[in-house]
Amino acid sequence: MSEFSIAAGEFKERVAKVQALLVERELDGLLAFSTESEPTYVRYLANYWPLSETGAVLVPAKGEAVLLIGPESLTYAQHRSRLDTIIQLSDLRESSQPEYPEAEKSTWQDVFRQFSIRRLGLAGWHMFPHAIYENVRAALGPGEIVQADDLIRLVAMRKTPAEIACLREATRICTVGLQAVLDRLCPGMTEIQVIGVATGAMMNEGMEPLGYGMICCSGPNSAHAISRPTRRVIQNNEIVQVGVGGTYGGYTASVTRPFIMGSVPNETVAFLEVGRQAEMMTIDLMRAGTRASDVARKVHGWIREQGYGDAILYGPAHGVGQMECEYPFVETSSDIVLEENMTFQADMFLSRPGIGFRWQDPFVVRDGPPDQFPTFRREIISI
Amino acid sequence: MSEFSIAAGEFKERVAKVQALLVERELDGLLAFSTESEPTYVRYLANYWPLSETGAVLVPAKGEAVLLIGPESLTYAQHRSRLDTIIQLSDLRESSQPEYPEAEKSTWQDVFRQFSIRRLGLAGWHMFPHAIYENVRAALGPGEIVQADDLIRLVAMRKTPAEIACLREATRICTVGLQAVLDRLCPGMTEIQVIGVATGAMMNEGMEPLGYGMICCSGPNSAHAISRPTRRVIQNNEIVQVGVGGTYGGYTASVTRPFIMGSVPNETVAFLEVGRQAEMMTIDLMRAGTRASDVARKVHGWIREQGYGDAILYGPAHGVGQMECEYPFVETSSDIVLEENMTFQADMFLSRPGIGFRWQDPFVVRDGPPDQFPTFRREIISI
Repeated sequence: MSEFSIAAGEFKERVAKVQALLVERELDGLLAFSTESEPTYVRYLANYWPLSETGAVLVPAKGEAVLLIGPESLTYAQHRSRLDTIIQLSDLRESSQPEYPEAEKSTWQDVFRQFSIRRLGLAGWHMFPHAIYENVRAALGPGEIVQADDLIRLVAMRKTPAEIACLREATRICTVGLQAVLDRLCPGMTEIQVIGVATGAMMNEGMEPLGYGMICCSGPNSAHAISRPTRRVIQNNEIVQVGVGGTYGGYTASVTRPFIMGSVPNETVAFLEVGRQAEMMTIDLMRAGTRASDVARKVHGWIREQGYGDAILYGPAHGVGQMECEYPFVETSSDIVLEENMTFQADMFLSRPGIGFRWQDPFVVRDGPPDQFPTFRREIISI
Repeated sequence: MSEFSIAAGEFKERVAKVQALLVERELDGLLAFSTESEPTYVRYLANYWPLSETGAVLVPAKGEAVLLIGPESLTYAQHRSRLDTIIQLSDLRESSQPEYPEAEKSTWQDVFRQFSIRRLGLAGWHMFPHAIYENVRAALGPGEIVQADDLIRLVAMRKTPAEIACLREATRICTVGLQAVLDRLCPGMTEIQVIGVATGAMMNEGMEPLGYGMICCSGPNSAHAISRPTRRVIQNNEIVQVGVGGTYGGYTASVTRPFIMGSVPNETVAFLEVGRQAEMMTIDLMRAGTRASDVARKVHGWIREQGYGDAILYGPAHGVGQMECEYPFVETSSDIVLEENMTFQADMFLSRPGIGFRWQDPFVVRDGPPDQFPTFRREIISI
């Protein structure tokens, strides 16, 4: 399965691209921070995926990037890091703040001195803990901290063939998961049991545990835009929204479909069909050279024309890659112009009180029609 | 299965206990913050479990606590919150910072004004994002922010019968997961496939997805203290460390065992046996009135006497409950005196270069011998 993984050379290229931007911005280094549930930046630069503890990568303007980890992760990090140098810092321990009375760790001062960092870019700005920020600032002394998420975003938003291959494989795994659900789904199962079926089938195919909170929300729960499966027992004559997501080689795709259990009123079927067509329209409009806001306006305009304007919560697509939902976004406010090899997830969520659904698939922007991965049946399916 | 859930009244009691501490500390309110991978505080106070977005609970010194959520989580939060009032804030959106051009959200100013907050306690200190901290501070004006994780810790560290029942059920689910693994484990499976078997079996039993990053690390990977399962194929004549964790009703237990594939040298079996005995010794020593540091010193002393002092990474136990690893810790530096109804996880991890294992089980501190839940076979098992 190695054909889907990201080669060592590609990690070096990522670091080099970030370094070019650091020089341009007159920054001495970039500190990129990640957590268990938001591993993007550290996985992108080092292939490391923090668990329980947090992690960071320091990219100096010149020289080799280093991986920064917590007190318990050394052997794990040595196994999977693409960066040779690994430094342990107490600040990256679990947030419950375990005590390690006998462990000697490096300090931020040590790290910044070693790499001559004074002007520091920080990526992961919106989740970087205040307590660690204060320590970093103290260690920098007269230095400066600058928000710098865009340094990684600008590099990461155009995907390479290897990245696209990982996304394609992740999509295949999702399709296997949805088919396993379709084979087993019946009234009397709980939402959690449905996700258990999908998860077991997808890990059997090589999905990395666990990059994505999978969704199974049934009946009135189907209106949840974000959800966790519950012990609710699925009934006959209702909608079940099943969204499976799989990570492969660090790339997360997700595929979501509404299923009809038994039968539902014609107006419900019509509502599902508007969503299905809106998803297809979104994918068709997403071509290189198109402004993202134009796509959002056209799709939302069409949904309003059908009489479902009240059912819109957010834009029709968003970036996908290392995170299931990442920059760039497709909203009426999104200025960005689409480029070849950007990867997006169509995410057509519509809801009214007590009922909702999502049609969701990943694809690659091209000059002409987008490159869609083989995916699960985009049909209204009754069980 | 409702006998295992936490009743509404118990949530009210938690809030009341926090409020008593707020008055004692002369604080106007507590802001408790949580994320997808660290949901403890918000789940404890509101039963809400953030996904993708973050979440918080504001407990004013007097009156009702309120749940604070992000832009996409309203219907989901309405479904599971035990707090009646829910307020949406832009600051609690995904860290990738999606745009919501048409959504009007409340501000921190609105919230603090409504509850007359000037002196604010903050729980979740070590993960609270700096960017949000700055906004909270600006909204408080001349007010003050004080670290206040201990306000929840002091309430949460003594468990009620309902909480202990959830932990017991979570342990039962882990046992089912390990038995499913034992029934299927064989050379040729990948580590990820092993965890797929456990996960599917445990969700079928009602485990909430997903509270815990499960561990299957084989051969040289077994030395990882923290790990994620990989696509490594399990071989004959090596150790496999399998750690399954299940959340039930918000309480996470985990149970870990080393399995021997085929046969391994006698010295490896002897190493495993030292760990097994050290785990049993730990559990036996953990009685009400005992100082936690004494337990750590005795157990580590015994391991050193056996000649394995170099294999110790951390203390022999830690608190368990809403998190698989929470306060209080059992280290040589831990001053805390054990009390009845504190719940711990024995966590006997030992490693040497290229080989490691963990024996891990939850239990309840009593006046006499601890209350152990029915658990998976605490034996050295060869497959």
